[in-house]
Amino acid sequence: MSYTDTPVQEIDASMQEAWKAFHVYRKKSLKERAALMRAIAKELENCGDHLIEVAMRETNLPEARLRGERGRTIFQLNSYADACERGDWLEARIDTAIPDKNPPKPDIRKMLVPLGPVVVYGASNFPFAYSTAGGDTACALAAGCPVIVKAHPAHEHTSEIVADAIHKAVAYLNLPKAVFQHVYGKSIEVGKALIQHPHTKAVGFTGSYGAGMQLFKWTNERKEPIPVFAEMGSVNPVFLLQEKLTTSATDIATMYAGSITLGVGQFCTNPGLIIGIESEALKTFTHDLGKAIQKIQPAAMLHAGIVSAYKEKKGNALLQDDVHLVAESETAVEENQGLPTVATASAQAFLNNPVLHQEVFGPYSLIIRCANKEEMLAVAQHLDGQLTSTLMATENDMLQHDELVEAVKNICGRFILNSVPTGVEVCLSMQHGGPFPATTDSRFTSVGADGIKRFARPIAFQNWSNSLLPDELKNENPLGIIRTVNNTPSASVL
Amino acid sequence: MSYTDTPVQEIDASMQEAWKAFHVYRKKSLKERAALMRAIAKELENCGDHLIEVAMRETNLPEARLRGERGRTIFQLNSYADACERGDWLEARIDTAIPDKNPPKPDIRKMLVPLGPVVVYGASNFPFAYSTAGGDTACALAAGCPVIVKAHPAHEHTSEIVADAIHKAVAYLNLPKAVFQHVYGKSIEVGKALIQHPHTKAVGFTGSYGAGMQLFKWTNERKEPIPVFAEMGSVNPVFLLQEKLTTSATDIATMYAGSITLGVGQFCTNPGLIIGIESEALKTFTHDLGKAIQKIQPAAMLHAGIVSAYKEKKGNALLQDDVHLVAESETAVEENQGLPTVATASAQAFLNNPVLHQEVFGPYSLIIRCANKEEMLAVAQHLDGQLTSTLMATENDMLQHDELVEAVKNICGRFILNSVPTGVEVCLSMQHGGPFPATTDSRFTSVGADGIKRFARPIAFQNWSNSLLPDELKNENPLGIIRTVNNTPSASVL
Repeated sequence: MSYTDTPVQEIDASMQEAWKAFHVYRKKSLKERAALMRAIAKELENCGDHLIEVAMRETNLPEARLRGERGRTIFQLNSYADACERGDWLEARIDTAIPDKNPPKPDIRKMLVPLGPVVVYGASNFPFAYSTAGGDTACALAAGCPVIVKAHPAHEHTSEIVADAIHKAVAYLNLPKAVFQHVYGKSIEVGKALIQHPHTKAVGFTGSYGAGMQLFKWTNERKEPIPVFAEMGSVNPVFLLQEKLTTSATDIATMYAGSITLGVGQFCTNPGLIIGIESEALKTFTHDLGKAIQKIQPAAMLHAGIVSAYKEKKGNALLQDDVHLVAESETAVEENQGLPTVATASAQAFLNNPVLHQEVFGPYSLIIRCANKEEMLAVAQHLDGQLTSTLMATENDMLQHDELVEAVKNICGRFILNSVPTGVEVCLSMQHGGPFPATTDSRFTSVGADGIKRFARPIAFQNWSNSLLPDELKNENPLGIIRTVNNTPSASVL
Repeated sequence: MSYTDTPVQEIDASMQEAWKAFHVYRKKSLKERAALMRAIAKELENCGDHLIEVAMRETNLPEARLRGERGRTIFQLNSYADACERGDWLEARIDTAIPDKNPPKPDIRKMLVPLGPVVVYGASNFPFAYSTAGGDTACALAAGCPVIVKAHPAHEHTSEIVADAIHKAVAYLNLPKAVFQHVYGKSIEVGKALIQHPHTKAVGFTGSYGAGMQLFKWTNERKEPIPVFAEMGSVNPVFLLQEKLTTSATDIATMYAGSITLGVGQFCTNPGLIIGIESEALKTFTHDLGKAIQKIQPAAMLHAGIVSAYKEKKGNALLQDDVHLVAESETAVEENQGLPTVATASAQAFLNNPVLHQEVFGPYSLIIRCANKEEMLAVAQHLDGQLTSTLMATENDMLQHDELVEAVKNICGRFILNSVPTGVEVCLSMQHGGPFPATTDSRFTSVGADGIKRFARPIAFQNWSNSLLPDELKNENPLGIIRTVNNTPSASVL
């Protein structure tokens, strides 16, 4: 099956439709938006085995993973629908009037309203959860924004099936068709036309640094600035502190052999850098991790572009001064597979070579050997912004590395203790984002219901009579949402 | 008194110091940050009459206004200090572990942490409240960010006195000196060097569209994107609906004569556009507003640049096709004064001429005469983003103009009913921001404690033991802040 690019003039027509749909959809209640999201979840379920089969063919991902990911996507839609209805994300604030203040204080009430049409560029590595009906789409619909998804060129058929499911849900609820639109584009023109259209009011992107920065550059050419949340991956450093490493080298090696190679390493939270201090324990860890990696079967990667990028970036990393191969899988690798690989380098090599700071997207990790605590701190201080960072540490380790803990805190969006960074829980406390270059705006997340706030802005109503206010802000609190009334959160009526 | 520009190499040194100070200051507790803000408020008070006298000389603003503005600035610092300690802005979220879920759900806890050094460009029209110790500085300090203020060239001496007050407060609390720094720059090089420095992590700006967009452009040349909140003014349209106008034309005229000329019209919320439907009532309003404007005494504007820009922009607006002078102050105007002026144009002239959409900063307003309801709606739909919009309307008017109400809602940050846009209350529900070109990011505000969130980002702690977590996220909730625990807000212990 082959899809032709949506012509640029059709994109203009789509954006005009999206703009019209915005003015209908933004007035829909929280309940109605949630109903749409739940209907999409239901339709995704209804796609049945066919969707899974097509996605398996297009992405090389195994059936169990894809069934799990669809489940996660359905859970995401339903849980953001709950959050949408709960309404905390509206940040409703009410300050009541004080007429005898000098000058008199007016009644002011604030809540979030949608920005406008949101363009979503999905990720190749999450054909469901970060694609057509993924987190960005769910957040935008919850906020009250129409969505225009550009199908990821690596899974256009999967994307089409999911888009059809969304179209059905939109039709079922009698919403304007253009609340959701789906376009195709292998060429950069489509992506550029979408992001530069005057009716595009926000962007959600998950993918590579190169593609994310290209979109960001195009956005900056616009007359009107718009928010772009681009999640562009990360090397997700893991620090092995000494007491923990000494007592658990083998366990950590086993745990990380799994995390490095999970999903053929095709996660933006894949641990690409492991930092320890030269010691017997680090040697044991390195040895055991190598042994474990040797036994892991290579598996097919998402598409030919990912395989060749993996080979090239890994090959280049291994060619750098003072980088040595620790181990790779013993099983012969096929053309479309990624070979699990672990290498090592000294901290000095790492500190002096920016190539080693770059993400190698795939089942690869680099162990950095530090001479001492101070060098480990220097490594932490030289790291770019990260989606996640991890410490393997005892409580005693933590107390002895307070500077390191602070340095790591300053560069990451999620800070994990004694676990692995792969596996991103969908819940309100999740932060999937981080300082640049992990994302273009560290103040937002693309996982968890707080992601809705990327696509909404506050509006304050001053001196409005109760009956004219939106339900969210009325005295009687008909939606029963939690609002901050005169600086105190409350679910009650006024 | 004359100030020389801070040399660009000194700016680099300052930013290095700010970066070092950041690593100390960000670890300070909410209480310690609040103490600093309160100490600054106290020192501002201690500046006594001298500060007022210098500001009067530099800004031409009258004593009462400046005393009031200092009071507002002190109130702002104290109320944001309260908000800082209350900690709601941290958006603390806790999701507790569910070990028997498959896969097990980890314990995750999230809160906001500071971005890093914040550069503040103050406004000429608020020498205290939006300048050196103004809202942006207060928000950044509350967030845990060091601040570098570029003194506004129009009030460098005032700025120096305020900066010294802040330095004293910083010293009194034994904080690193570089928690607050003050630089001078009449040339664009200083502004550019500050915004393009790699250690600058966010920007707060209040001023003109031209200057704001210049800063935004420089930011986009950086390797690392950073958030810029630039508040760039607005024409603040006021819609006069028919029933209200018919019953209250004279009252509205009196009210608006005051609002248009308040502070010589030098407010970003000045009502620069008044829209009504051709009628006897509109004639009465226009006549009465003209009469009132004639009686208002011209007063000195902030500085020569503002006076000449006012004359030029107003002159240009009056030269446009179909624009007619309604009235100007009868009192002869001096060189440094702004002449209160009201003009009128047809809706067709307005719809066809972008010049009439531009802000004329000063005591000027343009009355737009619409043929009917539909033309009034067309005017609303053609407006750019605005800080505020106002409706003068009865409840009946509102019900009969639902499309207009929705169109206006979609373009403004604050929506006022039957009042004036001038006067920006400092409270949590205030939104001082709005869709472009009012600001560069409509998702944030520069007035009210929600402004703190411009300068902070979330970090999630996964699987941390209670004793190692920051106090804000510990089970026992030692700070007594409100946190969202398993989706429910709560001030209790876990």
